[in-house]
Amino acid sequence: MNTASLIAVGTELLFGQVVNTNAAYISERLQLLGVSVLYHHTVGDNPGRARKTLELAASESGIVITTGGLGPTQDDITKDLIAELAGRKLVHDDEAYRRLDEIMRSFGRINYTENNLKQALVPEGAVVFYNEVGTAPGFALETDKNTFIAMPGPPREMKDMMQRSVIPYIATKSDAVIFSKLLRFYGIGESALETALLPIIDGQTDPTVATYAKEGECAIRISSMRGTESEAKAAVEEACAHARELAGEYLYNEEDKDYPQVIVEMLRRKGLRLASAESCTGGLFSGAITSVAGSSEVFDRAYVVYSNESKVECLGVSGETLDKYGAVSEPCVREMAQGALERSRADIAVAVTGIAGPGGGTDEKPVGTVFFAIAGKGRECVSRARVFRDRGRRVNRHVCVLELCSLIREFLIDC
Amino acid sequence: MNTASLIAVGTELLFGQVVNTNAAYISERLQLLGVSVLYHHTVGDNPGRARKTLELAASESGIVITTGGLGPTQDDITKDLIAELAGRKLVHDDEAYRRLDEIMRSFGRINYTENNLKQALVPEGAVVFYNEVGTAPGFALETDKNTFIAMPGPPREMKDMMQRSVIPYIATKSDAVIFSKLLRFYGIGESALETALLPIIDGQTDPTVATYAKEGECAIRISSMRGTESEAKAAVEEACAHARELAGEYLYNEEDKDYPQVIVEMLRRKGLRLASAESCTGGLFSGAITSVAGSSEVFDRAYVVYSNESKVECLGVSGETLDKYGAVSEPCVREMAQGALERSRADIAVAVTGIAGPGGGTDEKPVGTVFFAIAGKGRECVSRARVFRDRGRRVNRHVCVLELCSLIREFLIDC
Repeated sequence: MNTASLIAVGTELLFGQVVNTNAAYISERLQLLGVSVLYHHTVGDNPGRARKTLELAASESGIVITTGGLGPTQDDITKDLIAELAGRKLVHDDEAYRRLDEIMRSFGRINYTENNLKQALVPEGAVVFYNEVGTAPGFALETDKNTFIAMPGPPREMKDMMQRSVIPYIATKSDAVIFSKLLRFYGIGESALETALLPIIDGQTDPTVATYAKEGECAIRISSMRGTESEAKAAVEEACAHARELAGEYLYNEEDKDYPQVIVEMLRRKGLRLASAESCTGGLFSGAITSVAGSSEVFDRAYVVYSNESKVECLGVSGETLDKYGAVSEPCVREMAQGALERSRADIAVAVTGIAGPGGGTDEKPVGTVFFAIAGKGRECVSRARVFRDRGRRVNRHVCVLELCSLIREFLIDC
Repeated sequence: MNTASLIAVGTELLFGQVVNTNAAYISERLQLLGVSVLYHHTVGDNPGRARKTLELAASESGIVITTGGLGPTQDDITKDLIAELAGRKLVHDDEAYRRLDEIMRSFGRINYTENNLKQALVPEGAVVFYNEVGTAPGFALETDKNTFIAMPGPPREMKDMMQRSVIPYIATKSDAVIFSKLLRFYGIGESALETALLPIIDGQTDPTVATYAKEGECAIRISSMRGTESEAKAAVEEACAHARELAGEYLYNEEDKDYPQVIVEMLRRKGLRLASAESCTGGLFSGAITSVAGSSEVFDRAYVVYSNESKVECLGVSGETLDKYGAVSEPCVREMAQGALERSRADIAVAVTGIAGPGGGTDEKPVGTVFFAIAGKGRECVSRARVFRDRGRRVNRHVCVLELCSLIREFLIDC
């Protein structure tokens, strides 16, 4: 029961029309349940090859997890093949039928076809996982040697079923309880973070610490598998406390929240409103902040001042500053932040101007040169220059958004 | 030579730390070369299981393509296993050695280890593919039954090697030439597009037409494999012309450019400058437009007017309009567009206000209700209401960005 093979079924995956993101998602969660994933396979809607792959996976691993091929069309072969392999027949599931009928009627389809009803069939003896976000149910089927788990292919349906049904199902078969936390860091590279955290990484078997590089930031997952949840939790919290000591200055969240979300929550707690003045990010920062539902409570407005004229007209940046120092300069970014603070209803305003590339770089100010500022009512304006390694326009701009978040967090910690 | 199996080698994939995007990329390109991909497999850095997977793939398909496991460490086992399976020994490649030595010296590493030199070894008789963006070379090795192709795992290195070496290598083994075009559509769903294009989809063997659903839009790839390039090109162009007749009103690009890129190029050709006034998108539209390198030529500024006060203060929306119709209304969006046009240096201004969800919806204005407007110098302001199906905050906002692009394109076609 501690090894698994994953099989994605679907010709669209073999055509390269769709990237198989399900495999990584399921693998990461199985890992946390103490299950080792040995193989990922992808096969098309071809019964011969799909059967062969299922047999192979069943001979390799205790748990065989399939995604896809549960729909109503002839191409959808997963269920038949698992039933055949397990020597079971397909039977009608009343609850699955009731749900399907309800969905079809809500679409106004009274006379739906036999095909649709095919989705209410499951292998005899299976534990059915009802689909809360789509139509096809999944299931678990135990045989002498294997546990077969079938889930739908669309990631939204698969993730919901995984969280709601599959993880609890697998967890009940295990004596151990797993607890884990994801810690997110900004301002330190993955290998530097690994070096800093060596005392809790090296030679540890439980809790385990895995590092992940994300775009412009990194994360660690600390996991423990123990006899009880409180033991696992205590072990993870101890390692967490240790990680805070070793690299706390770069740690911005311990609940897998992204940086804009953390900033919105910080502002809400403190009852403060924010505005931004953006040049090189072109609205990406305000776009990221407002991606958080409920951000209207804390976000007032953004001035996306891409042209020099707009910097003068919207924010009152002086023509002299632009002439003397240029639009990508510390004096300019400070005037942008002050201008946004004075002209808006916000308590805090941030500003950014820089060279995102690929063009526009000079010897003095290469691509990746960015100036940041933050201004708050009754406080000194804080500004800083950064010369980021050029990782292409898209990543350069994304890193600017993270740096603005970091600037706000530092500014708010003191107040 | 017309079937392939792909094998990704790397324990990080089985841990779910990394999504295997290589498989989709390689598959799509093989498809264009007339090669059918039968399986994708992923296996860890485990010699026993990797050997078993290679043997399986070699028995299934003519071409076996591996990614990963070519590096300098002990974990990197791909090369040894392919050589073993093909009954060849590993030999030193002079050019690979020279390149490796150059890279190591450029890093200031004069006394690098034996391990690094391992990367200069290739199976005897292999065609070596030098790596222009990393250190590990790839190769092709022919046996009686199979063509083995090994590429590095990092997507940037794999893509470069695929384009530069692997595609030409496979193409030379084929008598036929392939030509293809990607057409992008907005404003029509995938199944409606498929229905509209049935005359060129149904029963066609060459050119082939494949549809792809992307977020909020869709695309088709038209491909032809013929004896000469000009024949293939002519066949694709003919199908293209037919597609234009059938669904031309939704077609926005034939060169795989995204909508913001198309808009920036249109504005540049016409010598026009743009501004935006954004409420529910929160700066995402300006962020998307300014993601295009060189957009500073055509983009002046954005007013991200998230709060009601900012709509009044930045754009001159009247308090009466807000009181009477609300911020999410057609009168408001028209005043936003007009205000942005008058206050900026732009020739055209677009505006958007709506309910992105999850909160804020009412019976009268459910989540997904969005108003759009465009104003241009000397032209009537055009506005429209849309009630999009609620696909979650992130997608809802993304669709608003596409709709703004569509509005601009329609507006500019006439001028």
